[in-house]
Amino acid sequence: MGADYLAQRDARRTDFNATIQDYADEVCFGMVWSRPGIDPKLRSMLNVAILTAMGRPNQLRTHVEGALNNGCSVEELREILLHTAVYAGLPAAVDAFRVAEDVISKA
Amino acid sequence: MGADYLAQRDARRTDFNATIQDYADEVCFGMVWSRPGIDPKLRSMLNVAILTAMGRPNQLRTHVEGALNNGCSVEELREILLHTAVYAGLPAAVDAFRVAEDVISKA
Amino acid sequence: MGADYLAQRDARRTDFNATIQDYADEVCFGMVWSRPGIDPKLRSMLNVAILTAMGRPNQLRTHVEGALNNGCSVEELREILLHTAVYAGLPAAVDAFRVAEDVISKA
Amino acid sequence: MGADYLAQRDARRTDFNATIQDYADEVCFGMVWSRPGIDPKLRSMLNVAILTAMGRPNQLRTHVEGALNNGCSVEELREILLHTAVYAGLPAAVDAFRVAEDVISKA
Amino acid sequence: MGADYLAQRDARRTDFNATIQDYADEVCFGMVWSRPGIDPKLRSMLNVAILTAMGRPNQLRTHVEGALNNGCSVEELREILLHTAVYAGLPAAVDAFRVAEDVISKA
Amino acid sequence: MGADYLAQRDARRTDFNATIQDYADEVCFGMVWSRPGIDPKLRSMLNVAILTAMGRPNQLRTHVEGALNNGCSVEELREILLHTAVYAGLPAAVDAFRVAEDVISKA
Repeated sequence: MGADYLAQRDARRTDFNATIQDYADEVCFGMVWSRPGIDPKLRSMLNVAILTAMGRPNQLRTHVEGALNNGCSVEELREILLHTAVYAGLPAAVDAFRVAEDVISKA
Repeated sequence: MGADYLAQRDARRTDFNATIQDYADEVCFGMVWSRPGIDPKLRSMLNVAILTAMGRPNQLRTHVEGALNNGCSVEELREILLHTAVYAGLPAAVDAFRVAEDVISKA
Repeated sequence: MGADYLAQRDARRTDFNATIQDYADEVCFGMVWSRPGIDPKLRSMLNVAILTAMGRPNQLRTHVEGALNNGCSVEELREILLHTAVYAGLPAAVDAFRVAEDVISKA
Repeated sequence: MGADYLAQRDARRTDFNATIQDYADEVCFGMVWSRPGIDPKLRSMLNVAILTAMGRPNQLRTHVEGALNNGCSVEELREILLHTAVYAGLPAAVDAFRVAEDVISKA
Repeated sequence: MGADYLAQRDARRTDFNATIQDYADEVCFGMVWSRPGIDPKLRSMLNVAILTAMGRPNQLRTHVEGALNNGCSVEELREILLHTAVYAGLPAAVDAFRVAEDVISKA
Repeated sequence: MGADYLAQRDARRTDFNATIQDYADEVCFGMVWSRPGIDPKLRSMLNVAILTAMGRPNQLRTHVEGALNNGCSVEELREILLHTAVYAGLPAAVDAFRVAEDVISKA
């Protein structure tokens, strides 16, 4: 997710949230993202779609940033979000466009 | 989705379900799938992830078939479903593996 | 929901499920459906939309039957289900059309 | 949704979000809301229920405003939200009452 | 939920939200929480899991406070939230850890 | 989950589903269920609530069996499911009571 993300995460680390950070490191990064078969760009694009469908705006923001870092273009991002409108419903997509727009405007 | 799928759909067409079939044709196929920017293989892979996350096994079956028809390999399908386990939860992924396995065994 | 529905429900009553039946009777029928302000036809139409959005096909079947009993026409039902396609996504609506079609064909 | 809503939307229009705005215009307004069979007031009331069930507070706000503009009374709105408590759960309804209360207090 | 919670709720009471407050009092407290069979601590722990899975951060905050008041330890809370990561997905759990951390830091 | 469950799972093992089985073994059993802090009975009870809320009947069946094996009584199970009716909605709870009743009748 980039050095900034990890630095911020370390600064927020407490005894309480260490549990979920360590789980995320082991499961996401150790057991899933590091596997061959599909590349990080596709994994990021899938997450944008999944998080839009599930309605998780905080996590979506992080993974829109990740998708752009992993080589997803703004045009691809726009098409993925439009695609979710059909399958996850227009409200999910409208909310996701706002999150993505905000990330893009700050990039 | 292939000629068989369309033939079956036509055979089931009634005055009642014609409304949703026509909507699907216009929206999915006319307004979204035909757009450039991302290709049909990626659209199918996104749908596998979205439908797994949303828990829609009937539609997942159709889109697993579509993904394989659009050039997604069995290995890519397996990696996409494993990826959803982290983000949409293990129960969603286990159910989706069963659906996908059934489609693959009949292919 | 009609006398048949209640007769079937009584026949299935056990010590275990009596808890949820009594809760349903008190909450649904005692505290909500009996209130003035919106009529039973509208309550049924809302339930068709809610259960489509939430992906609960068993309960949707019961409430499609209830909607038709409460004066919702087949045309109104069709329009409600098409409407959900935009807001809850096409997969939810396609699954709901199948359930509704099955109810209508047996009516 | 009223002239204010459309004016605000135009002011926010960018190359990126134009895609979803145009989709919304064509699908919602062109293909669904303009159909006969059920009236705009009922469509708004269905959306209040769907968006409460799906947990989309931003979109719910817009559609509570739309429902009031389309002739839904405050009493009807209250009854719809109470009704969702039974079927979509109390937390969904409590969150939706807060959104609705905020809209009503500013009307 | 404690005297403070109830005092705040009373202060916010209006003709509009009285409907859902009275429903909550009768259903939650009268018909469910007061039943024997499982104790308030377990009910609170179930709610933390349910609200994490359903993505309702406002209600989760209230029920994390309730869980701590009902005797759930911070360690138990942490283990419950980690457990939800497996079944409801990592994004749900990460969001819930943030809510819980904020409650704990203010306690 | 008991020897029968594991024997059945082994018999269904293929190159395809081995991926998710190994993930489940490592994550669920290795990283979560084996942790101290909350006991297996509570973990099972949380899963019953989570899977009811998320609408996953196949996985719910497995975890109702697991809950009974881990010392959850039928009375506790009934109270947990009734509790979910308030927070996840009546349709989720009614569907879950049917699944649980079927498991209990076969035990």
